[in-house]
Amino acid sequence: MAIITLTTDFGEKDYFAGAVKGAIYSELDQVRIVDISHSITPFHISEAAYTIKNAYRSFPKGSIHIIGIDSELTPENKHLAVKLDDHYFICANNGILSLLASEINPEKIVEINIHDKIETNFPVLDVFVKVACHLARGGTLEVIGKTVTEIKYLKQYEPTVNSDKKQILGHVIYIDNYGNVITNISRKFFENVRKGRDFTIRARNVSFSEIHEAYSHAINFEVEKDKRREEDGKKLAVFNSAGYIELAIYKSNLKTVGGASTLFGLDYLDTVTINFE
Amino acid sequence: MAIITLTTDFGEKDYFAGAVKGAIYSELDQVRIVDISHSITPFHISEAAYTIKNAYRSFPKGSIHIIGIDSELTPENKHLAVKLDDHYFICANNGILSLLASEINPEKIVEINIHDKIETNFPVLDVFVKVACHLARGGTLEVIGKTVTEIKYLKQYEPTVNSDKKQILGHVIYIDNYGNVITNISRKFFENVRKGRDFTIRARNVSFSEIHEAYSHAINFEVEKDKRREEDGKKLAVFNSAGYIELAIYKSNLKTVGGASTLFGLDYLDTVTINFE
Amino acid sequence: MAIITLTTDFGEKDYFAGAVKGAIYSELDQVRIVDISHSITPFHISEAAYTIKNAYRSFPKGSIHIIGIDSELTPENKHLAVKLDDHYFICANNGILSLLASEINPEKIVEINIHDKIETNFPVLDVFVKVACHLARGGTLEVIGKTVTEIKYLKQYEPTVNSDKKQILGHVIYIDNYGNVITNISRKFFENVRKGRDFTIRARNVSFSEIHEAYSHAINFEVEKDKRREEDGKKLAVFNSAGYIELAIYKSNLKTVGGASTLFGLDYLDTVTINFE
Repeated sequence: MAIITLTTDFGEKDYFAGAVKGAIYSELDQVRIVDISHSITPFHISEAAYTIKNAYRSFPKGSIHIIGIDSELTPENKHLAVKLDDHYFICANNGILSLLASEINPEKIVEINIHDKIETNFPVLDVFVKVACHLARGGTLEVIGKTVTEIKYLKQYEPTVNSDKKQILGHVIYIDNYGNVITNISRKFFENVRKGRDFTIRARNVSFSEIHEAYSHAINFEVEKDKRREEDGKKLAVFNSAGYIELAIYKSNLKTVGGASTLFGLDYLDTVTINFE
Repeated sequence: MAIITLTTDFGEKDYFAGAVKGAIYSELDQVRIVDISHSITPFHISEAAYTIKNAYRSFPKGSIHIIGIDSELTPENKHLAVKLDDHYFICANNGILSLLASEINPEKIVEINIHDKIETNFPVLDVFVKVACHLARGGTLEVIGKTVTEIKYLKQYEPTVNSDKKQILGHVIYIDNYGNVITNISRKFFENVRKGRDFTIRARNVSFSEIHEAYSHAINFEVEKDKRREEDGKKLAVFNSAGYIELAIYKSNLKTVGGASTLFGLDYLDTVTINFE
Repeated sequence: MAIITLTTDFGEKDYFAGAVKGAIYSELDQVRIVDISHSITPFHISEAAYTIKNAYRSFPKGSIHIIGIDSELTPENKHLAVKLDDHYFICANNGILSLLASEINPEKIVEINIHDKIETNFPVLDVFVKVACHLARGGTLEVIGKTVTEIKYLKQYEPTVNSDKKQILGHVIYIDNYGNVITNISRKFFENVRKGRDFTIRARNVSFSEIHEAYSHAINFEVEKDKRREEDGKKLAVFNSAGYIELAIYKSNLKTVGGASTLFGLDYLDTVTINFE
């Protein structure tokens, strides 16, 4: 059965996501609609990219992903339908595709041109749904748009290495539900530069000289019985499940004791450096 | 396949929505359950009405919509099942139906009377689900209730025109995820009074003399290259996708820079006037 | 069709829940995935237990329930798959099962041992999904783990009775979307101790000498026309739909006027006593 996923900044409350689902079911009886997130920060392209990039890979090949963020059609913000990694993505040409396609080249990109008859200020409902249902029925990209090769490019989201290869300069790209702080430095990027050297990660006033494979690896479960074990609230760096270096607090809770973001004082786009010895 | 939608004030966290879905699947194997919203402000009938009214139209005819808000059975709050615009609605007689039916007369309204054997303080689970599954199996309204013609009426939600037709007096009925402020003045109502005249919309300290067809129409994309374009944060009035006049901030974010509601200081039921020249 | 439910502390925003759904659909085409909650307070085992315990009963027998909370595999936190009340539960051995199984003994508990090939810090995605899909295909517990009889026990969540049977000492186990305060004192526990006596429930500065069967039973709908009816904001105790004593405010709203939790000053684990005469 065809799968259509939704990643939007509609929020949990408004009627927008419900209307989109209704419109899909009105066109297709046999389809699965899966909510990935409707709680992307409004107009936050980078958050949306991080979310869909790490979610889509778990879906079956051929799944169709609607990205409803900053999607109003303007002279500078055309609508795209893309085949990438055997998945379909429908989004605006606002830079998100460059983030999604940072490691994998799209097989095909078309600029959607079915708008002639559609005047709308709810393009996800009136345009993206039509394109998604067309693809779900086995339709081709060529029918709904013209091939393009140039897309809007957002480059600020990649870490850099200084000239003597002694420092990586990255930044925060996402803060998750636990307050953990995700950097744009992937394991692969890090290991390529590291070449076995010792290192120190620094962000504001915190530093780390080790990156764990799992949160609990930071905890010593062998501590003697009569000694208090350092556990909840312990800070650590970890390769997260998306493959990025993440600065975390063990078992944190943003609403009570705080999380890495609040306790380290780190926010979106703040700097994270790694110095090698 | 039958579709049952859920619009409630249960919130995202509690077990209520999960239990309701489980109960539906326990009765019916072949059914689609679609969440419209569980984040309606508690007991906020008008918000629920705005949400379901604008979502249901996208669903296929024959869909069944459970509205789980202020639904405890009391001597003054009976349970209704309604056929309206070829959709079914199951709700309490708390006024919400008068808002849903403001433009379209219900084809049939019954007061649910299957309660004899059901003592419950979770009527959505124990009553509405049973009615919804009955309808999903093709059952009729007559079987589960007795026809009524009078329903509770909430009239405060309609705009008014003054005697010399020079002013529309409306108010705020909803604030959306972006902080945009939706008035109860529909495009149709507005145009009927306007008759081509110039106008000024006023709400607190903001005013507008133009209503756009889309958010981005407020932006001049032709501005000369070396000049700064006014864009993010620009205020505008727009006919929103639900057909109402909305006061908005272009690309707003309630959590950071604020939205129309916070920047204009507008809240639910605040007054919005339109003066014609 | 097999049903797999999700109860997690992933939040509404992050890609985690989306990825889990994608992974399930990648393994199984014919399956229903139902979100129970992704908004459990992070690492809050008792909240998760309250939620899944009261939701699962509405689902058909044979449903499979993934509980994604505090699920990282450690020497002290193994993974369990459990058959209980003809439902399947997949969770970590962090105490949650003892809360779920407080009234019903599990038919079978296995410690999951399919980890040999799986190194992961996202066990819900990489382990729980595999186990759930195995069970959904009709597989047995024996294949994915070894039977255990001892599980981690959380005992603090049960109310106690003093020696002369004149007092029940309970506490707050959950605060719901309306701010209503749920105690760990069930109707059954209460009635067993009460034996028809009058009583006073006390929590901080509020007290109640009656427990209603429904919220609206606290309201006198027969009040004379010219008198003001005490209604919105009225405090009451009620047997809630989960069968526990709940301290509530009639038609409360945490975001505006406040709810029982804020107005009574009650929080998780605060003491609630019942004295009998």
